[in-house]
Amino acid sequence: MNALLYLSEGKLEYKKIPVSDTPEADSIRLKVAYCGLCGTDMHIYRGQMDSRVTTPHVLGHEASGVVEAVGRNVNEISVGRRGVVMPLRPCGECPACEDGLSHICHRLKFIGIETPGALQEYWDVPAYSFLPIPETLSLKHAALIEPLAVACHDVRLGDVRAGQNVVVLGAGPIGLLIAMVAKHKGANVILSEISESRVQLAKKLGFDVVNPRTTDLIPYVNDKTNQVGADVVFEVTAHSSGAEVMTALPRCRGRIVVVGIFAEPVKVDLKRFFRRELQLCGARVYEREDFTQAIRLADAFPLDALITDVFDLPQAPEAFAYLAGANRAMKVLIRRDETIKE
Amino acid sequence: MNALLYLSEGKLEYKKIPVSDTPEADSIRLKVAYCGLCGTDMHIYRGQMDSRVTTPHVLGHEASGVVEAVGRNVNEISVGRRGVVMPLRPCGECPACEDGLSHICHRLKFIGIETPGALQEYWDVPAYSFLPIPETLSLKHAALIEPLAVACHDVRLGDVRAGQNVVVLGAGPIGLLIAMVAKHKGANVILSEISESRVQLAKKLGFDVVNPRTTDLIPYVNDKTNQVGADVVFEVTAHSSGAEVMTALPRCRGRIVVVGIFAEPVKVDLKRFFRRELQLCGARVYEREDFTQAIRLADAFPLDALITDVFDLPQAPEAFAYLAGANRAMKVLIRRDETIKE
Repeated sequence: MNALLYLSEGKLEYKKIPVSDTPEADSIRLKVAYCGLCGTDMHIYRGQMDSRVTTPHVLGHEASGVVEAVGRNVNEISVGRRGVVMPLRPCGECPACEDGLSHICHRLKFIGIETPGALQEYWDVPAYSFLPIPETLSLKHAALIEPLAVACHDVRLGDVRAGQNVVVLGAGPIGLLIAMVAKHKGANVILSEISESRVQLAKKLGFDVVNPRTTDLIPYVNDKTNQVGADVVFEVTAHSSGAEVMTALPRCRGRIVVVGIFAEPVKVDLKRFFRRELQLCGARVYEREDFTQAIRLADAFPLDALITDVFDLPQAPEAFAYLAGANRAMKVLIRRDETIKE
Repeated sequence: MNALLYLSEGKLEYKKIPVSDTPEADSIRLKVAYCGLCGTDMHIYRGQMDSRVTTPHVLGHEASGVVEAVGRNVNEISVGRRGVVMPLRPCGECPACEDGLSHICHRLKFIGIETPGALQEYWDVPAYSFLPIPETLSLKHAALIEPLAVACHDVRLGDVRAGQNVVVLGAGPIGLLIAMVAKHKGANVILSEISESRVQLAKKLGFDVVNPRTTDLIPYVNDKTNQVGADVVFEVTAHSSGAEVMTALPRCRGRIVVVGIFAEPVKVDLKRFFRRELQLCGARVYEREDFTQAIRLADAFPLDALITDVFDLPQAPEAFAYLAGANRAMKVLIRRDETIKE
């Protein structure tokens, strides 16, 4: 079968690789339909995660597809079932796993990082990682379930309630999905984004969006909240400017959810935490309930608006080069081939 | 009457100041017994808070005493009542006050900073700030109620439970009091402190204490917690080294309470919040329930061990100079005069 392989920094190859006759006993084989490209895939592509991947490495983890075959121990998943993959492989033994927090397992492996990913024609994954989707959900939209589950997790940890004021710093795919989930919960959402094309997209989706390069975000949020401040702030930029402004926005005892992955320690105004008794929590990937919520919500969400580009698998190298450049790309999907229906 | 006045950086004067015939209508007049010196008093003494105080300024806010007189609107407090002062003056109108969080009022005034403090023979304070103490509690120990209330507040916001593993970074007066309150809640407490005299004092009180200059704190905490990590970490150093280590110690979904007041933003490893879904909250002063809890707990606590020195009011300038130096001082009390019984 054909696969997209990461070889080394900036080097990808689309080529034939061998495939076993059947999936392993506890695995299923998914005929991949769509796979979204994510920031993590771009980090791997740029050579920033060479310590975690074994080359040649098959990229991708935001996939939808149809079950092609099941391993001999798999009884509850039928061939032909449409679904998505929750790409986590916890160890099952560490203190976090023992506490039922396997998504933050001390030795968490990520399917598509430490093991082969979805940018191939068939993807063998552990049966427990497969979640079926309803017939009403297209395979194309289903490729966005994984990032939507991230957003569901973030909003859940942020404890967002109806009527609350929420600020999302960064309107990339995750930021926009967080905004959608928070809005669905009944919150008033303000987005902050420096890219003008993303500002326009968020506006088209009906959001209140500020470009902090042209509008001072802090007084804007204070004015919109009657000088109270935001109930919940989501930091999705992973940039020092986000870490700086995030503490200035919340109300007394307001909450900050750190979603962006900061490669290095950054300066944070801890005095502001003292002054307003702010709370901050980190949020990582998702738990199973977030995936099922994402599947439940997906139909009602304008996911099409996020999908700016679709490439077929043979053209995946061009898709990476395109996404690495500066352009209006939001979510780029890779389609297995032209036989795949939406 | 006599008072200790702060004039300017490093300059204090003990002198006679006028006193009105009676306290204002809604105030009481306390005959001060003891007043503890606190880090904030030292900041004022060093000229670091000149923008907040009006000179000449009467210092001090950790006081105990006996009601000498009451204003004409005060009916529920009798002359002769022994008690302490919760030195907060909220505005009553801001969003925090509206939310019942008057201790983090947007325009909070601190009695003893923005208004005259307790280092005088008689101290007029709003009646609402006075809390009576039981006969069993000495006036000397009662001078530690204010910092003990800080500790009660911190431990409450840290949601410390019996059997949990708690790390306190910094074993000054507040750190030690937090350790005592956490231990009282049934937690296993590890203290980290770089001053050898403070290490010895904490050891004498029966605590597990580490000097991080000679013992690596992170493996120490991991070993003591079976590689799980701490449930709650209290950052009480206000030093960048504390901000650095605080994120390395908690278990998955563990909590950090920031107690130390960081003058400047410091580097924080936000990635660790992501990795373990850590939580952090700031804690500021106390609410009324913390003061009443402190009064309830004080009798059972070895507060004497914290009081390293007592000076009489006329010698208060020497007490400040002494506390500003490097020595074994923990809590320094100022006694009104030798007629004051403990």
